[in-house]
Amino acid sequence: MLRVAIDQARLGAREGGIPIGAALFAADGTVLGAGRNRRIQHDDPSVHGETDAFRAAGRQRDYRSTTMVTTLSPCWYCSGLVRQFGIGAVIVGENVTFDGGHEWLREHGVEVTVLRNQECIDLMADFIEREPLVWNEDIGR
Amino acid sequence: MLRVAIDQARLGAREGGIPIGAALFAADGTVLGAGRNRRIQHDDPSVHGETDAFRAAGRQRDYRSTTMVTTLSPCWYCSGLVRQFGIGAVIVGENVTFDGGHEWLREHGVEVTVLRNQECIDLMADFIEREPLVWNEDIGR
Repeated sequence: MLRVAIDQARLGAREGGIPIGAALFAADGTVLGAGRNRRIQHDDPSVHGETDAFRAAGRQRDYRSTTMVTTLSPCWYCSGLVRQFGIGAVIVGENVTFDGGHEWLREHGVEVTVLRNQECIDLMADFIEREPLVWNEDIGR
Repeated sequence: MLRVAIDQARLGAREGGIPIGAALFAADGTVLGAGRNRRIQHDDPSVHGETDAFRAAGRQRDYRSTTMVTTLSPCWYCSGLVRQFGIGAVIVGENVTFDGGHEWLREHGVEVTVLRNQECIDLMADFIEREPLVWNEDIGR
């Protein structure tokens, strides 16, 4: 499942964007929607990896059985999305380069798995080193 | 300021959408962006009033001095947006028909003003009575 999100992050990197990817999966493992951060590509600060994947999935009647997989710990914006729509589980590729709201989600009943995937870490660490201002803008700093 | 948001909500209602509007203001009162819930119009669950206004405002370097005005108490998704990007103040038209994350925002340093505007209440109460399923879908219930 993380491979789908990483492929999105790599695609974003090739487009010159922030390398964060995500995908929303149904209980049977079907990809409902995949997306990536496109702040730079679309000049749009509202398109984070998770919100793009959520949007790509279209209108779903129930999110409880879905899983959001993201290459990076979800920021408050994306954590709020998960909580509001009752997404049942979140898989996080890494929380080394950025630590968002996944513990808060766990406290509110979301099944959270945090990995320490080196590919995800390298993608973000390289980007932050090259483009610190763009990254700070993306997280409102 | 609330008038700008209410006008967006009324426009949304005329389009057949969920009547929630919002606008992001600069410190000098300039409207940076205005928007409305367009789940129905765009068949897109990611377009809430606040996220639409945020998107319309484009990339801003700093949100601390901005104010988000919304006709309805912000859900967790929109509250997360406000917290992540450090929007300094939120003005809420009403929290009678839905009570979201504005108290959490206040705890985290956002200046929150909650009004009890009858026009905002009537817009939502009428919509919820007519379209309870669409409304429940919008808040993940």
